[in-house]
Amino acid sequence: MNNFSFHGGRLADAMAQFGMGDAPWIDLSTGINPHGWPGVGDLAMDWQALPDPGALDDLEAAAAACFGTDRAHVCAVPGTEIGLRMLGDILPGPAIHAQPSYRTHGEMIPQSRPVALSDLTGAEEATLVLANPNNPDGRITPPATLLGWLETRHSNGGGGASWLVVDEAFADATPEISLAAHVHDGQRLIVFRSFGKFFGLAGVRLGFVLGPRPLIAQYRQRLGSWPLSAAALAIGTAAYRDADWSASMRIGLREEADELDTVLARRGFRAMGACPLFRLIETADAAALFERLARHAILTRPFDYAPRWLRLGLPANHAALDRLDGALADG
Amino acid sequence: MNNFSFHGGRLADAMAQFGMGDAPWIDLSTGINPHGWPGVGDLAMDWQALPDPGALDDLEAAAAACFGTDRAHVCAVPGTEIGLRMLGDILPGPAIHAQPSYRTHGEMIPQSRPVALSDLTGAEEATLVLANPNNPDGRITPPATLLGWLETRHSNGGGGASWLVVDEAFADATPEISLAAHVHDGQRLIVFRSFGKFFGLAGVRLGFVLGPRPLIAQYRQRLGSWPLSAAALAIGTAAYRDADWSASMRIGLREEADELDTVLARRGFRAMGACPLFRLIETADAAALFERLARHAILTRPFDYAPRWLRLGLPANHAALDRLDGALADG
Repeated sequence: MNNFSFHGGRLADAMAQFGMGDAPWIDLSTGINPHGWPGVGDLAMDWQALPDPGALDDLEAAAAACFGTDRAHVCAVPGTEIGLRMLGDILPGPAIHAQPSYRTHGEMIPQSRPVALSDLTGAEEATLVLANPNNPDGRITPPATLLGWLETRHSNGGGGASWLVVDEAFADATPEISLAAHVHDGQRLIVFRSFGKFFGLAGVRLGFVLGPRPLIAQYRQRLGSWPLSAAALAIGTAAYRDADWSASMRIGLREEADELDTVLARRGFRAMGACPLFRLIETADAAALFERLARHAILTRPFDYAPRWLRLGLPANHAALDRLDGALADG
Repeated sequence: MNNFSFHGGRLADAMAQFGMGDAPWIDLSTGINPHGWPGVGDLAMDWQALPDPGALDDLEAAAAACFGTDRAHVCAVPGTEIGLRMLGDILPGPAIHAQPSYRTHGEMIPQSRPVALSDLTGAEEATLVLANPNNPDGRITPPATLLGWLETRHSNGGGGASWLVVDEAFADATPEISLAAHVHDGQRLIVFRSFGKFFGLAGVRLGFVLGPRPLIAQYRQRLGSWPLSAAALAIGTAAYRDADWSASMRIGLREEADELDTVLARRGFRAMGACPLFRLIETADAAALFERLARHAILTRPFDYAPRWLRLGLPANHAALDRLDGALADG
């Protein structure tokens, strides 16, 4: 299972290793919304021309309005993954990253040191990278706590090297926890947002950095004039403007997460965390459960550093939920 | 016209400034092939899932085969623009860049110093960035010359800081001048290739870095697991595999460039350069000619640093060529 504990989304590898089983496979290995924003098919893409700068302005304005941030503090990137990693060149350290969390947080800044999320005090004299909600445990650090940590960093003095970096890749389902509105010039706060997870369109590769204008300028210098594909521009702009879809999706995801929790509870598992896009369960031998589910053509997400953990994304529909239920029962 | 001398492709700005004129506008401001690879409409894109790592392997293998390079030396990037700029963090200098050339070459490595292309000796003790064919003048530096410069850099010793960086963004139409096959471990040679120009699909945002494996590893560290959109993967792989299209397009572009040269000559302009995707002309007052063509709804590319130069991309068809002919005649 080592191959599957690196990142989610390795469905082709799973098919090769476990066969087609009760195909079609159900991929619960990521936290990507199984209900993709439905407008994609209606959009005409201009693949031929270089994207017009005005299209990038429109996208960033639509996204900033959703995040509740001034658009001067928002820079679109071709996937949060690249955006996070670019920070390693912009803020080379010293840095610490909360654990457990998203693997990239430990790779993006050289010599970054891991610290348990539960041990953080906010007074560390280093750039602090964490996810909120956290991944994979879905734990939410209250915004008031994070703002207190930010305040401590500023009153420490700290020579400007000590930033608070919050990866809000999964915050769209619970926007009330976002720090986006607190991003300002002079604040040592950087927020990352992701398009593909909540909108269920991870293949678009679109993310955002929110930060003080000098930081945004450094990103633009590294990205150049055409950072995004015609598709990211067209799909992202239309989806962020579709406030009705987002509002009802937030309610729907909450309901579906409750249904998943009910199934898990019936089979003896308690779902951890507050992020409706994925649930973490604990079991004596997660590797065995991973393989049992894989033999039922259900891909989940194990973790090499936590052999008792298994993360499950939301099943796309009741048929998939029922198949998961049956596979969990097949002890 | 200042707005138009920064980059090509500012059609919306041109429409706003000059009105719709003899609409539809003809955009000759870039060197993008007006005949886009035609298979785009037949490809199904999976926007929902994270791109599978195998899809990236397939794309890089198809591209490497076209370039004539070992695939271990090829790394796909979401647009050459980002790939070039990432080099500024990987090889921070000292550097020189040939002039005149693509504006980004002067911005990508901090404190890079401009040197006239015609003054280069290849013995400079600094990383050297140049385009071949060059842009905007279409001048080709012979591969043997470049290989001699590379040899000089190696025999200089130079402490490993002195690289030869060749931007072959426009080399697909004349593959015989490419240095791609000379990229090896231990060679201080880096080659950039662009997908969007020759294949006429600039909105896809896809490019490639070719270099020694340690350099490729540094790019992958900065890009992470999903550098490309589902569209870039699907379109790029299929297009690079379509060798018949590429072969006949190379012939077709040459013929169309000859037709454009004939029209230009009839109106008193001599086309410079050896790249069929764009032609550079010299005239006493290029700004006046730019504006005259713009009033005929034809967008071309002026240069703030060369007030006698105007660059024209290939018209898409004979109707467009005839409109250009008429506009040039309307003195």
